[in-house]
Order: sequence, then C-alpha cells, then structure tokens
Amino acid sequence: MSEAVLKSIIARIEPLNGEAVEDAHQRLNSLTKPPGSLGRLEEIASQIAGITGEVSADLSKRAVVVMAGDHGVCEEGVSAFPAEVTPQMVLNFLAGGAAVNVLARGAGADVYCVDIGVNADLDDERLIQRKVRRGTANMTRESAMTREEAIAAIVAGADIVKELAGQGYRMFATGEMGIGNTTASAALCTVLAGISVEDAVGLGTGINEERRQHKIGVVQRAIARNEPNRLDPIDTLSKVGGLEIAGLVGVILGAAAERCPVVVDGFISSAAALVAAALSPQSSAYMLGSHLSHEQGHRKLLEVIGLSPVIHLDMRLGEGTGAVLCFPIIDAALRIMREMATFESAGVSRG
Amino acid sequence: MSEAVLKSIIARIEPLNGEAVEDAHQRLNSLTKPPGSLGRLEEIASQIAGITGEVSADLSKRAVVVMAGDHGVCEEGVSAFPAEVTPQMVLNFLAGGAAVNVLARGAGADVYCVDIGVNADLDDERLIQRKVRRGTANMTRESAMTREEAIAAIVAGADIVKELAGQGYRMFATGEMGIGNTTASAALCTVLAGISVEDAVGLGTGINEERRQHKIGVVQRAIARNEPNRLDPIDTLSKVGGLEIAGLVGVILGAAAERCPVVVDGFISSAAALVAAALSPQSSAYMLGSHLSHEQGHRKLLEVIGLSPVIHLDMRLGEGTGAVLCFPIIDAALRIMREMATFESAGVSRG
Repeated sequence: MSEAVLKSIIARIEPLNGEAVEDAHQRLNSLTKPPGSLGRLEEIASQIAGITGEVSADLSKRAVVVMAGDHGVCEEGVSAFPAEVTPQMVLNFLAGGAAVNVLARGAGADVYCVDIGVNADLDDERLIQRKVRRGTANMTRESAMTREEAIAAIVAGADIVKELAGQGYRMFATGEMGIGNTTASAALCTVLAGISVEDAVGLGTGINEERRQHKIGVVQRAIARNEPNRLDPIDTLSKVGGLEIAGLVGVILGAAAERCPVVVDGFISSAAALVAAALSPQSSAYMLGSHLSHEQGHRKLLEVIGLSPVIHLDMRLGEGTGAVLCFPIIDAALRIMREMATFESAGVSRG
Repeated sequence: MSEAVLKSIIARIEPLNGEAVEDAHQRLNSLTKPPGSLGRLEEIASQIAGITGEVSADLSKRAVVVMAGDHGVCEEGVSAFPAEVTPQMVLNFLAGGAAVNVLARGAGADVYCVDIGVNADLDDERLIQRKVRRGTANMTRESAMTREEAIAAIVAGADIVKELAGQGYRMFATGEMGIGNTTASAALCTVLAGISVEDAVGLGTGINEERRQHKIGVVQRAIARNEPNRLDPIDTLSKVGGLEIAGLVGVILGAAAERCPVVVDGFISSAAALVAAALSPQSSAYMLGSHLSHEQGHRKLLEVIGLSPVIHLDMRLGEGTGAVLCFPIIDAALRIMREMATFESAGVSRG
C-alpha cells in the first residue's frame, strides 16, 4: 500500500464550516438560558454544526469500530492477561456479550469488530476481515511492523469508515482490543507527545507496581532498540505501535474525511488520535473527547491532543466503552438545538 | 407543620441492603472484563443494588422534580436576571421548552414542576401547587422564612416523592428554579459546610467579579444578621436558605425513605443535599452525584457531602439539567448487570 493513498485521505480533510458554527452560536444564544450556561454542551453542539454543516444534524445512525490486534511484546510479560484473550474477546464482541456491546445497545450504536491483526485464525462472517499480519513483532527486539504494514492498517480503518458512511452512518466511536496495547500506547505517548515513560506507563488492565516498573523498562528498551523518528508519525507507529492502533488512526482520519464526528475512547484510542493529529492537525477538529481513563497517562495525553474528557468514571477497560457512553451527551447537545424554546417564543426576560 | 412529621420521614430511612450490594459485587466480578475496570460504573451498580435491594432494578420510570421559589434577597442586586424570570421560567417548564424538559425527554424522565414559593400567582393545572409563601424575606434584614415554613416546604417535597413513588416512579432527580438562589446556597455552604464565603460565592447565572464581591458582602450580612445555628440545619435553612432548597431537602429525604436513588444536580441542589445529609446522614447513601458545575463552590461542597460528579461539562444552569444527563449513565450501569457475558458463558480466560 503506497503512502499516496494515505495522503489522498488526508487531503480530503477540510476545515470546519465556519458559517454553521456561527449559526449554531446564534441559535444557542437565543435559547431560554443564560448565555453559555450549558457550558461544554454548547461547545459540542457548535462543533458538530461545524463538522456536519448542519445546526442540528441527525446522527442517530452511529457505529463503534472495534479494532483487534495482538502484540509481540506480550512475550515480555507486560499484561495481567494472556494474549489468548484477544481472540476470545473478539468472539465475545461478535456474540454481543462484551461491555462495549452492552453500552452500545444503550446508546443506539452498532458495533463493528475488525480483525486487523489478531494472532489467530478467526472465521466468522460477522467479523470484518482486514488482517494485515498476525500480531506485531516483539518491539524490544525489532520493529513492531513495517512501514507498509502500518500504512495498510491505517488505510483499512479509513476504508471501513468510508463504507459505513456510505451506508448512512454519521458518527463514529473508536474501540479496540489487544492484550499488551497499553504498552505500545505508552511508547507512542513517550515518543510523539513527549510524556516521560514513567508518566506514560500505567497499570493497564490490572498489573501491580512491580510489574509496572518492569513495563517501564520494556518501553524504554523498545524505544532504544528502534530509535523511532518523532517527526515521522508513521515511522514511530510502525516501530513501537500496534496494528489496532494503526487501524484506529485510519478510523479517525476516515471519519474526518467523511465530515463525521469521531468520539475518542480511552488511553489506546487517544494514542491513535495522537498519531492522527500528527499526520493531519486538521483532523483534531473532528474528534470529541469522551472519558478520562484511570490509566495514568491519559490526562496528559488528552491535554497534548487538546481533547477534554466529559465523563469521569475511572474506567480502564477500553473496547470503546467510554466513547459510546458519550453518545447520549452528544444527543443531548443536538436535542437542545432542536427543541429548546427561545426567549421570544417563551416570553422570558433576558438578563 | 410539626417537626414530628419530619422526624417520621427521617425515621423511615434505612441503611442500604448489604446482601444486595454483595450480590452485585459478585456478579460484577464474574463479567468478561478485568475486575473493577468499569470503575465508578461498577460502584453505581452496587449502590443501586443496595438502595433497591435488586441486583438489576428496573428504574425506567423516573422523574425530575423542579422546585420553584423566589428570594427576597434579590432586592440586594445579587443576580444577573430580574426576579420576574422565576414565574416566566415556570411557565416555560410547563410548556416543555426549557433545557431540563429537553434533556429529560432524552433521558426518558418526566418533569414535575412545583410552586413551593414563587412570588406570583400561577394558575396552571400542570403545576403542582404547594406554595408555602410568596418568596422568602430579604435575609439581610430578617429570617428568610420561619422554622415552620422551612419544615412545611421539606414535608411538601417528601410528600410529592411519596405520591410519585406510589405511581411507580423509581428514580428521582432534583431540579430548581429561583432567581437569587445561588446566594442562599452560598450562605448554606458557608454555615453548614464551613466553606469560606469567598469560596462559596460564585458568578451565578452570569454576574461579573465586581457584582460577585457585592454578593459576598450580602451573604456576610445575611449570616451576621440572622446568626444561624450551624448545629441546627433547620434553623440555618430557615434563616438563610430558600423555599425551593427546602423543598429539595424533602425530595431527597423522601426518595431515601422510599428506597429510591436520587440524583443530585448542581450547586443549589447540592446545598439541599448538604442540609439533607445534616438532618439524616443515612440519606447520603441514596444520593448520586451528577455533574460538576462551573459555579465555583460546587467542587468543595460535593467533597463535604461525599459525592463524586460523573459529568464534567462546566454547566451552570441548574433546573436539574446535570442530573438528568446522568440518567443514561445509571442506565448503562444497570444494563451491564443485565446483559454482559460472564467469563464462563463466553469462554474467556481470566487473568
């Protein structure tokens, strides 16, 4: 897959529609509430207007794209769970029994699970088959993947979003599954966001402090071994990233290219957002922050990307669970635009 | 209204059901996710189990009770809006055009608006008529209301919840409308939570820093004039509180007495929660925090009560808007309990 395809996706990402943002702002100030008193709910409404070009878009058809991939670095003992859990959880997603399925149903969202790099043969027609390779290599010994593989995974993510947008989907959430992927995400944070390894490495799905210290060493060795070029996001992603992270970079860039809002989940998804923003600063305008993860590096990472988490539940599950919880809040912002009375219509005095 | 009626309401508030909490905990740990990885969503599920006695209660019938009352202290120029906005907004609530109506529709909640002390004659059959008096007195000159009036407003709030619970409502949110009520709430915070006046007084619906300094002086004068007894919450509430705040104290105590969760909205509702917790420490177990308001005293106030806000949107509107936004998150917690696969059912390895 050539870099030209990726460049053409990025070239399609346009600035937000300033006129629609202004219309949204005017409408918000006509509603029966003190100006600005709905806080960031008003910012969300304005942002969605700028993204879609409509003051109150219909985003009822929405999807969470769950990218699944394995990590060779699991050999180093960085996770509380064995690598076999990745394919097991993929089957759980397909059966509808995982947390993200449950929360997506509550938010009116469809779950699409993608095998972008699981280290197992998964034969299920409900699974989107886009396997680039069977898991990454152990990044403490060699590059996690090649540059071409990283680009192929990004393009696959963007392709999937393009196809879903063609089916009428108007809003996306990022989700992932990959035992070991907080390790890769921490490495990306360190290289691309300048966050110290000590701050970027957290407890993942449940290791203890001793294992965390070991995990810090693993990330340090991976970076030292590969010497990723922090000015080249693809180089960094291929050397110390992950296939599902690359797939999500594509989901985010693809959503921006389709003028659809994309809700960024927790730490791993935010690492993908970091790469996407490095490749296309313009794409940030299409991202919405969702929750603040318990994973310790997440707060700083969101600050670097410029995203504000709306939901504070101390979750640390990934899958897209925090992102889909944010859908009802976005719905609330849009409903405000559609249904609230104005000062004039309700006969309420302005301050 | 005698204090005996209030005492009988408080006497009905029981500890949470420890067995149901334990059952919820066991169920949560059997689900396909690392233990505790859904963070406070799991805590919410356990708390609801303890409140209702059911591991996954049906809370689909829910209401936001919006208490409306006026404040004599508005004579002192503490608000960005004229007092006439209180009755105007009551009519807006009844017509369904206010922010809380819009957000309640999105959350499947019914809005009940109560005239507990509006300084106007409101004749509308959709309004719950429980007017205790036409607005409070100017608390910088005299007690805002009598002790009997404060108790009457609390009992009215509890009565309304009891009636709604009889109609099948299982979950409540607190809402309010009352120009001037951040001033009364700040006074309650100062006396009952030991928060300094400087920290407790904020910008309300939109005054500037100069007006805020004036508002600080007003609160100081009200406290100095009335000398509320901080060990007697009713004395404090009657001297420097508000009728809608007293009504919400009743909503909270009433919900606890009916074993129903009650979601506490922003700064004013939290001032009511403070009074409720002072009257019945047990009632706190039935409260859920919702959002963190832009109003500067809210964070400290929530800390004192022991509530954690889930939603961070910098809202400062009141009405119950932040509380109803929390309903979908509570629904998500309950849905997790009902629908998620277990490690055994999904064939997923434990860590």
